[in-house]
Amino acid sequence: MARPATSPAPEPPYYLPSGDEIEVFAQCHAQGLAVMLKGPTGCGKTRFVEHMAWRLKRPLITIACHDDLSASDLIGRFLIQGSGTAWHDGPLTRAVREGALCYLDEVVEARQDTVVVLHPLTDHRRILPIDKTGEVVEAAPGFGLIVSYNPGYQRMLKDLKPSTRQRFVALDFGFPAPETEARIVAQESGIAEPEARALVQLATRLRALQDRGLAEVPSTRLLVAAAQLAVRGVDLRRACLHAIVAPLSDEASLVGAMRDLVDATFV
Amino acid sequence: MARPATSPAPEPPYYLPSGDEIEVFAQCHAQGLAVMLKGPTGCGKTRFVEHMAWRLKRPLITIACHDDLSASDLIGRFLIQGSGTAWHDGPLTRAVREGALCYLDEVVEARQDTVVVLHPLTDHRRILPIDKTGEVVEAAPGFGLIVSYNPGYQRMLKDLKPSTRQRFVALDFGFPAPETEARIVAQESGIAEPEARALVQLATRLRALQDRGLAEVPSTRLLVAAAQLAVRGVDLRRACLHAIVAPLSDEASLVGAMRDLVDATFV
Amino acid sequence: MARPATSPAPEPPYYLPSGDEIEVFAQCHAQGLAVMLKGPTGCGKTRFVEHMAWRLKRPLITIACHDDLSASDLIGRFLIQGSGTAWHDGPLTRAVREGALCYLDEVVEARQDTVVVLHPLTDHRRILPIDKTGEVVEAAPGFGLIVSYNPGYQRMLKDLKPSTRQRFVALDFGFPAPETEARIVAQESGIAEPEARALVQLATRLRALQDRGLAEVPSTRLLVAAAQLAVRGVDLRRACLHAIVAPLSDEASLVGAMRDLVDATFV
Amino acid sequence: MARPATSPAPEPPYYLPSGDEIEVFAQCHAQGLAVMLKGPTGCGKTRFVEHMAWRLKRPLITIACHDDLSASDLIGRFLIQGSGTAWHDGPLTRAVREGALCYLDEVVEARQDTVVVLHPLTDHRRILPIDKTGEVVEAAPGFGLIVSYNPGYQRMLKDLKPSTRQRFVALDFGFPAPETEARIVAQESGIAEPEARALVQLATRLRALQDRGLAEVPSTRLLVAAAQLAVRGVDLRRACLHAIVAPLSDEASLVGAMRDLVDATFV
Amino acid sequence: MARPATSPAPEPPYYLPSGDEIEVFAQCHAQGLAVMLKGPTGCGKTRFVEHMAWRLKRPLITIACHDDLSASDLIGRFLIQGSGTAWHDGPLTRAVREGALCYLDEVVEARQDTVVVLHPLTDHRRILPIDKTGEVVEAAPGFGLIVSYNPGYQRMLKDLKPSTRQRFVALDFGFPAPETEARIVAQESGIAEPEARALVQLATRLRALQDRGLAEVPSTRLLVAAAQLAVRGVDLRRACLHAIVAPLSDEASLVGAMRDLVDATFV
Amino acid sequence: MARPATSPAPEPPYYLPSGDEIEVFAQCHAQGLAVMLKGPTGCGKTRFVEHMAWRLKRPLITIACHDDLSASDLIGRFLIQGSGTAWHDGPLTRAVREGALCYLDEVVEARQDTVVVLHPLTDHRRILPIDKTGEVVEAAPGFGLIVSYNPGYQRMLKDLKPSTRQRFVALDFGFPAPETEARIVAQESGIAEPEARALVQLATRLRALQDRGLAEVPSTRLLVAAAQLAVRGVDLRRACLHAIVAPLSDEASLVGAMRDLVDATFV
Repeated sequence: MARPATSPAPEPPYYLPSGDEIEVFAQCHAQGLAVMLKGPTGCGKTRFVEHMAWRLKRPLITIACHDDLSASDLIGRFLIQGSGTAWHDGPLTRAVREGALCYLDEVVEARQDTVVVLHPLTDHRRILPIDKTGEVVEAAPGFGLIVSYNPGYQRMLKDLKPSTRQRFVALDFGFPAPETEARIVAQESGIAEPEARALVQLATRLRALQDRGLAEVPSTRLLVAAAQLAVRGVDLRRACLHAIVAPLSDEASLVGAMRDLVDATFV
Repeated sequence: MARPATSPAPEPPYYLPSGDEIEVFAQCHAQGLAVMLKGPTGCGKTRFVEHMAWRLKRPLITIACHDDLSASDLIGRFLIQGSGTAWHDGPLTRAVREGALCYLDEVVEARQDTVVVLHPLTDHRRILPIDKTGEVVEAAPGFGLIVSYNPGYQRMLKDLKPSTRQRFVALDFGFPAPETEARIVAQESGIAEPEARALVQLATRLRALQDRGLAEVPSTRLLVAAAQLAVRGVDLRRACLHAIVAPLSDEASLVGAMRDLVDATFV
Repeated sequence: MARPATSPAPEPPYYLPSGDEIEVFAQCHAQGLAVMLKGPTGCGKTRFVEHMAWRLKRPLITIACHDDLSASDLIGRFLIQGSGTAWHDGPLTRAVREGALCYLDEVVEARQDTVVVLHPLTDHRRILPIDKTGEVVEAAPGFGLIVSYNPGYQRMLKDLKPSTRQRFVALDFGFPAPETEARIVAQESGIAEPEARALVQLATRLRALQDRGLAEVPSTRLLVAAAQLAVRGVDLRRACLHAIVAPLSDEASLVGAMRDLVDATFV
Repeated sequence: MARPATSPAPEPPYYLPSGDEIEVFAQCHAQGLAVMLKGPTGCGKTRFVEHMAWRLKRPLITIACHDDLSASDLIGRFLIQGSGTAWHDGPLTRAVREGALCYLDEVVEARQDTVVVLHPLTDHRRILPIDKTGEVVEAAPGFGLIVSYNPGYQRMLKDLKPSTRQRFVALDFGFPAPETEARIVAQESGIAEPEARALVQLATRLRALQDRGLAEVPSTRLLVAAAQLAVRGVDLRRACLHAIVAPLSDEASLVGAMRDLVDATFV
Repeated sequence: MARPATSPAPEPPYYLPSGDEIEVFAQCHAQGLAVMLKGPTGCGKTRFVEHMAWRLKRPLITIACHDDLSASDLIGRFLIQGSGTAWHDGPLTRAVREGALCYLDEVVEARQDTVVVLHPLTDHRRILPIDKTGEVVEAAPGFGLIVSYNPGYQRMLKDLKPSTRQRFVALDFGFPAPETEARIVAQESGIAEPEARALVQLATRLRALQDRGLAEVPSTRLLVAAAQLAVRGVDLRRACLHAIVAPLSDEASLVGAMRDLVDATFV
Repeated sequence: MARPATSPAPEPPYYLPSGDEIEVFAQCHAQGLAVMLKGPTGCGKTRFVEHMAWRLKRPLITIACHDDLSASDLIGRFLIQGSGTAWHDGPLTRAVREGALCYLDEVVEARQDTVVVLHPLTDHRRILPIDKTGEVVEAAPGFGLIVSYNPGYQRMLKDLKPSTRQRFVALDFGFPAPETEARIVAQESGIAEPEARALVQLATRLRALQDRGLAEVPSTRLLVAAAQLAVRGVDLRRACLHAIVAPLSDEASLVGAMRDLVDATFV
């Protein structure tokens, strides 16, 4: 039921490219440059990293960043064991030693101390100093650092420092083109093409609501969830209300506007 | 006196459906989609989850979220044991391994780091990475993640991030229709139907006070408590004052308005 | 010099009822409903709980709540012992297992995580899940949960959440009627009835100062303290200054107004 | 070089009473009432407690309160010892068990959790519950609780809660009358009476500066320090500048005004 | 794969001096004066320190400062080991004992307690007191302390205290002159001189945008990254967009202005 | 390479007195009075304490205060050792036991709990209670407490409490008279007298800039650093820019004004 964190995906994860992102990522990896994926929630950044790990034949270690992720959570710590303590590598250290891809999801959520430990891995040194043991680990060949970042959030107090940003080559992600997105929805849910296209049409209309107060627009993931319910027999309109409208907002006026768009799409 | 946390309820917990929530929940569970229950305090969300666990024949693990619930509280920790330390699964990890339903009550109260550990369980990966051991646990068949959320609270500073919300199919809960609610009150307390209907009538009037400053309107649970006291011989009017009015507010003017409504209901 | 925390009081603690609080409390206990005692400092809430514990023949465990009371302080923790760690029940867990009354004094002072662990004990489940051991303790027959709460404090930032309040039947406490209060003062201090009545008269006048800036009005407890000093030979006027006026305020104008009332009462 | 914390002072600490404080304190002690000493810095509160401990023949345990004083610092904690952990009483617990006077200096500095643990010791229960061991310690005969409190500080955010204040009989302390204060200065420093009186005259003039921005006025302690330097040959004017003026303020205008008063006093 | 933290670089790190910084640094080192390097992100401060360590034949220990770097992280701590605890030197202590250069990168990010432990190392004492062991370590010959500091950040709340600043001789760093910078870009990436010069020309134009809201201007490091991608076949214009423009800002207007400059540079 | 913290300086540290500070300090020490040294950065307070320790033949223990210095850091703590824990004295406790001078540098930086533990050492009791062991350590003969304090900082939120200030005799420190300061610079750096006098002249001019926004004026220490560089061959003007101007400010206008004064001084 459990597999080691660093095993590469056994088969190619489904990913439809929308630009030169595969080429640039591959060249960054070859040159030892760290990569930042910029884009909204659920537009395929995680899937892209899984795809690239498979393509580059590197194990992948993913770390979801949050307020309380400490440097020790990344690097490792001493644990009491038998008589005395033994050092246990954290996920970043494992990735550095094994030459894995290390993906820090939503890096802006992490505390500064977590971000700062990445610095010596992102310049010509490519090292990870472990202060607690005095060891300096040089990155194994194949190691790559990737972070994701959602510039859509308006967060005054939480932003990457310029001195951190300048350590990454950045790839911009957006939602796929409608035709592409419909193909993804159909592929992932098993829904018929016309319904998939209608869902994408609805998404396009909903995404236009961002200027009217919607905190974030619906991701491809939401469309797939609605489609999955519909495939199992839930009425498509109700599936959209449960899987797309209700998750997006609690405000009556916004919910009403979204319901109207659902009705308009599925007359 | 104690039973393991994950045993399913031995008999069907009483639940009166008010829409398609049973069907949608079941389909979400079949498709591996996480579910968010939105609705006010005491409207039956917890009971609904118990009912669905019984219906789907899955064990249920409930976790009450709060400010200090850490990721380790969910996932597990090392405990000193004999010589050295041994890993102890937390309730979420147990649910993931055993294919149980895991219900996080009032998820918005949890810290961001707690919420973020749910992410890889809510997309196509369905995994729980345990950083401290390096293990990646794949969700056992039957595992389902459910969170509850009360959109009624006006909390500026505490809200689910959009990137979290978009990971759930949402079911809206409200108070049951009057006829249904009266049947629930009578069933749970043993009070006669006419008194049960009068209590629901009082609740309807009190719920109209929300615009006049009542922080939250009376739940079905309060009606049942008043009915329980009345069944044991406490005067019904006084039972309402103790079990409904006094818990709802300390403000003299609001309390006065509520007392008037109690008097008007039980002349 | 020390007795176990849960032994019931050996003899009936002195308590003069002022309404139906004894009946309602007893019925709540019989029905498994949790109780909230609302009222100002020193009006007899603690004494009432001790009286009810004696009346219902249940052990009583009292917990003074404060900012730093953690969920572990209530539920228990692992302590290092010999080889390895052993679990030690906290006071709430002991009460749940032994069917004791558990009284959380000034519950609003506790952190949210402390309050939230009470939730599953206050609805139909009547269970206490212990996450750290995976045990779910069902409340033993006789267990009762009581909290106290002083609505007089104007605390913007610290209030019970509605979802918590709706889990309790509430009993309103105020100061006793003058005749009753004088009898209590005489009984507790050994002072003669006329002086006791004069002290209550002073208290009534001082309590009228609340609108003029007194943060809290004098409790019965302060009257008893002044009476105790007077019984031991301290001049009654000076006893009032030391035991009633000085504890209530440091502001010169308020202290002056109170001294005038003392002088007017004991010419 | 070290003596146990609880031994009473071997000889009567020098203390000149200025009112009925000795009688009221003694009666409070006899009646088991807790005492609050209110007054400015260095006016003799600590000395008074030492004097009363000697008079009542009780050991004295003094605790300086501060922001980080936790309940465990007062009550005790488990310490790792040989195989397993052993409980170690804190200073409050020792005082309760031994029937000592326990003096919490500047109690308003302590955190709420520290203050709250005092509550059950200050009412009819006179107990100290130790949650971590489940023990309830009844106060031994002779135990007395004393706190000090400086109402002069204007601290918006830090004040004793009314529910705490009402648990103490309060004694107001001020600076001694000039004749008394001069006698104290002479006694403590060995300086001649005329110089002692001149120092007190200077203090009276400086204390009048409070309305002009002096955060706190000079205490008797400062006069004694100046006198001690003068006795050892430091010029009295310079001794006043070093021991009285410089400690009181850094502001040039205030320092200038104080220097002028020193010059005017010692022409 | 790993080498001890303190080994000097085996070969001269590439560094092009732009003033008297090598001479002044060497004299500071000879005189035991601590050095502060002031300048923007990515202008070569780290490389300069590596170069000086090689030149002075001293081992180099680099510490990236951040909010959570504690004094213990620098000095060392007790770790449980076999029976009891053993002291482990931190990186600063190791540098002090071994006479290494110790480089604290972005020292302004560190907490005050971290900075304060440096003080006795920066004056005539040249000692490091280790409070936890009672040891006072005198700096070995060759020890040197270097900190870096980016004065460009406008951080109201985070600044070095004057009493800290006055403990360092400061060297100002800026971007190299265009001719020098082009040579660095060519040397580090392998790109042809004309493209290197065009990239520097672009950087000069982009750096002029600082007054229009760019938080930080592009460093030499970004130019090298763009050049590295171009050398591997990525179109130079696209390489600039990914490696220079996207990392610098998320704001549409700024990004647009920067794209225009890229287009204007590589027509 | 390391010596115990408490050994007195082997030879008289160079110190030029500027008033009666040596006599007053010696008398305070003889009388057991604590001393506060008030004055700007780098004016010789630390050197003065070292000089007095040598003169009074007492060991000296110096503690640099900071935000995170806890009471335990001063007093001591239990450490795990073999079987069980053993108490380890902190630096303050060692000083108290050994009759050393204990110097707390920049005491205003310390947390309140650190400052409060000093109180019983500064009045007639001269004791240090160690709550965790129950021991009360009486100060050994020769013990002296000294704190330093820079009143120049305008820190609203961080100031010594009046009740703490009144526990010290205060000595005001300023920069030495020009003739004296030039002699110090020459003595410490080996520079010729004329250059030393020119440096002091520059310092006098720079110190006049305080009203124009300079956070702190240059200390004698900065003059010595510039002189040290010049003695080793660095051009005196450039030495002043690196060692005096650059450390003092990052603001272009202030730096420009200071450069002009450097040019004017060394034409």
